[in-house]
Amino acid sequence: MEPPSSCPINAAVEVLGDRWSLLVLRDVIFSDRRYFRALLTGSPERIASNILADRLVRLVEAGLLSRGTAARGQRAQYSLTEAGIQTLPILDALGNWSLTWRPAAGELHARQQFMHDQGPPFIEALMNDLRARHLGTPAPDDDPSAFERLNDVIG
Amino acid sequence: MEPPSSCPINAAVEVLGDRWSLLVLRDVIFSDRRYFRALLTGSPERIASNILADRLVRLVEAGLLSRGTAARGQRAQYSLTEAGIQTLPILDALGNWSLTWRPAAGELHARQQFMHDQGPPFIEALMNDLRARHLGTPAPDDDPSAFERLNDVIG
Repeated sequence: MEPPSSCPINAAVEVLGDRWSLLVLRDVIFSDRRYFRALLTGSPERIASNILADRLVRLVEAGLLSRGTAARGQRAQYSLTEAGIQTLPILDALGNWSLTWRPAAGELHARQQFMHDQGPPFIEALMNDLRARHLGTPAPDDDPSAFERLNDVIG
Repeated sequence: MEPPSSCPINAAVEVLGDRWSLLVLRDVIFSDRRYFRALLTGSPERIASNILADRLVRLVEAGLLSRGTAARGQRAQYSLTEAGIQTLPILDALGNWSLTWRPAAGELHARQQFMHDQGPPFIEALMNDLRARHLGTPAPDDDPSAFERLNDVIG
């Protein structure tokens, strides 16, 4: 029998097989929430403070987020790492599943449908936007940016 | 503020944001484990009996698995529904993430790499194999089948 860690699905599930970790990543990626308080108060699913604190530690330890050093009295800013940015296709696959199996009206479904219709190149463009925003790489030339296009979609 | 259920990522995460649910789906899909005992004894992560029982109920209630009616003294067989079959792209996205961020040697990584290299048409072919196996649709003409090709990959 192979040890558990040799299964790549299990290796990802060890980090991402958790409701709140996935929702925190969603909020950092799609809503640009970079601070503890923004993640806490902006959470539509009303994440509890202690759960948020725990999941932020886990995501940092797993290498998906980095925590900026905060000067005394300042708040620490969280950034996606490249490994965190590359969870976007997983979130996209989850959202696409819901388009068929948990259909609903509203802006967020319209945006998911837009991502689905645009296909993999658009996911790549979103990831490049995230790299500029979180890793300091040069911003893509696209005007409007991929995230601007996404946020312009009205349900 | 939109109600939580309007977010398609959250709607999927409510079912799939759970380590054991994802691993049970993985074992049904990739290892063709269709019975409680096979899922219990074949689990490389050693799922506990009560957790397996709970997750099977949840997956049936969520519409991802169906439970066959078992005659007295017979074991119930589980089948993927179409909604369950369509979780394959999510498992694939999880596995692909690990190819880069949790690299390891072994057969399972080699198979994930093969799926990745073959791309979306191969995922579609695997889903068609699953439809034949679980939903009774006509078997695809491919010889060898997509799953046979996958299982022939040696790490």
